[in-house]
Amino acid sequence: MKTQVAIIGGGPSGLLLSQLLHRHGIGSVVLERRTKAYVLGRIRAGVLEQGLVHLLEEAGCADRLHAEGFTHDGAILACGKDAFRIDFHQRAGVPVVVYGQTEVTRDLYAAREATGGSIEYEVSDVAIHDAQTDAPHVTFTQNGQSRRIDCDFIAGCDGFHGVSRRAIPTDIRLEYERVYPFGWLGILSETPPVNHELIYANSPRGFALCSMRNATLSRYYIQCPLSDRPEDWSDTAFWDELRRRIPPAQAETLTTGPSIEKSIAPLRSFVCEPMQWGRLFLCGDAAHIVPPTGAKGLNLAASDVYYLYHALRRWYHDDDRTGIDGYSEKALARVWKAERFSWWFTSLMHRFPDQTDFDRKMQQAELDFLRDNEAAQVAMAQNYVGLPY
Amino acid sequence: MKTQVAIIGGGPSGLLLSQLLHRHGIGSVVLERRTKAYVLGRIRAGVLEQGLVHLLEEAGCADRLHAEGFTHDGAILACGKDAFRIDFHQRAGVPVVVYGQTEVTRDLYAAREATGGSIEYEVSDVAIHDAQTDAPHVTFTQNGQSRRIDCDFIAGCDGFHGVSRRAIPTDIRLEYERVYPFGWLGILSETPPVNHELIYANSPRGFALCSMRNATLSRYYIQCPLSDRPEDWSDTAFWDELRRRIPPAQAETLTTGPSIEKSIAPLRSFVCEPMQWGRLFLCGDAAHIVPPTGAKGLNLAASDVYYLYHALRRWYHDDDRTGIDGYSEKALARVWKAERFSWWFTSLMHRFPDQTDFDRKMQQAELDFLRDNEAAQVAMAQNYVGLPY
Repeated sequence: MKTQVAIIGGGPSGLLLSQLLHRHGIGSVVLERRTKAYVLGRIRAGVLEQGLVHLLEEAGCADRLHAEGFTHDGAILACGKDAFRIDFHQRAGVPVVVYGQTEVTRDLYAAREATGGSIEYEVSDVAIHDAQTDAPHVTFTQNGQSRRIDCDFIAGCDGFHGVSRRAIPTDIRLEYERVYPFGWLGILSETPPVNHELIYANSPRGFALCSMRNATLSRYYIQCPLSDRPEDWSDTAFWDELRRRIPPAQAETLTTGPSIEKSIAPLRSFVCEPMQWGRLFLCGDAAHIVPPTGAKGLNLAASDVYYLYHALRRWYHDDDRTGIDGYSEKALARVWKAERFSWWFTSLMHRFPDQTDFDRKMQQAELDFLRDNEAAQVAMAQNYVGLPY
Repeated sequence: MKTQVAIIGGGPSGLLLSQLLHRHGIGSVVLERRTKAYVLGRIRAGVLEQGLVHLLEEAGCADRLHAEGFTHDGAILACGKDAFRIDFHQRAGVPVVVYGQTEVTRDLYAAREATGGSIEYEVSDVAIHDAQTDAPHVTFTQNGQSRRIDCDFIAGCDGFHGVSRRAIPTDIRLEYERVYPFGWLGILSETPPVNHELIYANSPRGFALCSMRNATLSRYYIQCPLSDRPEDWSDTAFWDELRRRIPPAQAETLTTGPSIEKSIAPLRSFVCEPMQWGRLFLCGDAAHIVPPTGAKGLNLAASDVYYLYHALRRWYHDDDRTGIDGYSEKALARVWKAERFSWWFTSLMHRFPDQTDFDRKMQQAELDFLRDNEAAQVAMAQNYVGLPY
């Protein structure tokens, strides 16, 4: 098989890149380890920056997002019994859009299928070859057969556990990591959200987040010890604990119901440098992980895709390699800023096991400053809605 | 002896309070453990917020400050070889004034002496009595004699090691503390400053600060292990290490010379709650300590004095006790914000022994964000020049 860009990973980054390249006449093949149904079964957050919304428009995949997504002009930050709102639209000029990552992926699959996109499912043993030459290739196994794709470029969109990052030799690759000493226990429930905007709560009992997918589907999270298992938490125990952590006004009006999904996710900050090696380019979780507190995971994958897609267009259409050569540096500059924001917001809102009373007072003072200071709100809002590409 | 306000401690807070009260016809006696010469021999930083400048004007002690102080419209922040400037005047509307704390104290002594202020030097065994009644008194020993002052109120301006804070019973008093795992080695030298504004440098070798007293007297600091002693550092070793930590442009033009003072100071964050107990009120270091990175120590003492002085005026002149009753809450609200800023700026600029590569990248990303983001600069500048009283 031969293509221009071999894309490893059929999640939202790989599909978006493939679709954007297609719209500009650049061919690609997407390799996905799982089935489409499996990919669509993964539940992920869905707070989209305008940059991602514009990319989806450019990819021709934004109609349902515009029809069904929810514009959020702000969010609530709570600390103990106090709560205040940050108006993103007022402070940073744009809102965010709440639309599930699963729905984004579904729309991208539909677009790829409607335009004849080539997606190979259930591939295994994916290996990257000759990435440092002008003629790289990818080998894999599918239905028991060994296969090979020759290509000009390889995009590694295969997530944190994928093979792409590991193809960069260890003497070149630097990895930066922080693992947080707690997890998020999340439930999905067919109940109306307690508030029309997100609520981030720093309570003496730990962090809580009130989020939603739509008007009848709520997503709630509470910080929990990493040693907990989802089965340790009955629905009743979850709702009781959530109520203790959110402001009284919301605790009183919270509608509860049976959970339709319940899981615990660890929190990690991770960055790989560089994000390219010869003709291999990493996008999204393959290169970096953020804790979910700032909802930056998918949005950061989107800015990688943006830089790579423009670099490839310049290569193919303008015979200009500056975008390709500068990809890692450009992507990383934005990645580190989003990593900083996610680390800051996580550090601000959670209870840490080794936290002293002084540390706790610093969180309180920072939240008080954020409540009272317009410039601090502007800086926070600009990060939340997404720094410019 | 009888007075309206007994002030324990003859440093800048106690003297400023005494002088301000005098200007409004309220009598006080200042008790100082040392001699005047000893107090004036203490070397301290001297970056004054406008709030303190206005208080000194109101106290009638600002003539020399206006004649000899240096207005600083900004400061340089450096990270490795990169450096950028934050323009305080542009971002926050006002500058800061560089004028040594020793000079402030000298001017306050002169004013108290010119207006017949009562200052008792070399007192010992100071004890606070009946602070929870309407008739408190203070006892002390002077020249071998036991003495007593009856008063309406007691102001504890006697610093971190003073007796005032410890007069608040331990079951009422909450203390919050962070001790940083490094110190500042500082030297004073009769050399022209390397830059006309302050330079704060985060280098891989540790923090450095280029500061000054005036056009021919420089003050430089470098972060050092707490186990170091000043005598371990020759002048040559100090200058060599300073040069390695500051941006190349300044390292090349640094004028060195013999040190006329060399000392190591520990860094501490500390807050005592509440700041009042009955008719005893704590001001300045008696209630809180900040690490020196944000130059907030003297300025925070000044805002305490401002609140207490206005509270006492309302008590004596308007028969209104709301200022007195609300002193601790009002003072602490500003204290915690300055503590947060000092903790943040210290955390941002120093090398920590347990710092990971990821932590170091977070410092770099935060400095990059501060360099590039106007709102972040505004928030920083507003804190640096001083939040409103």
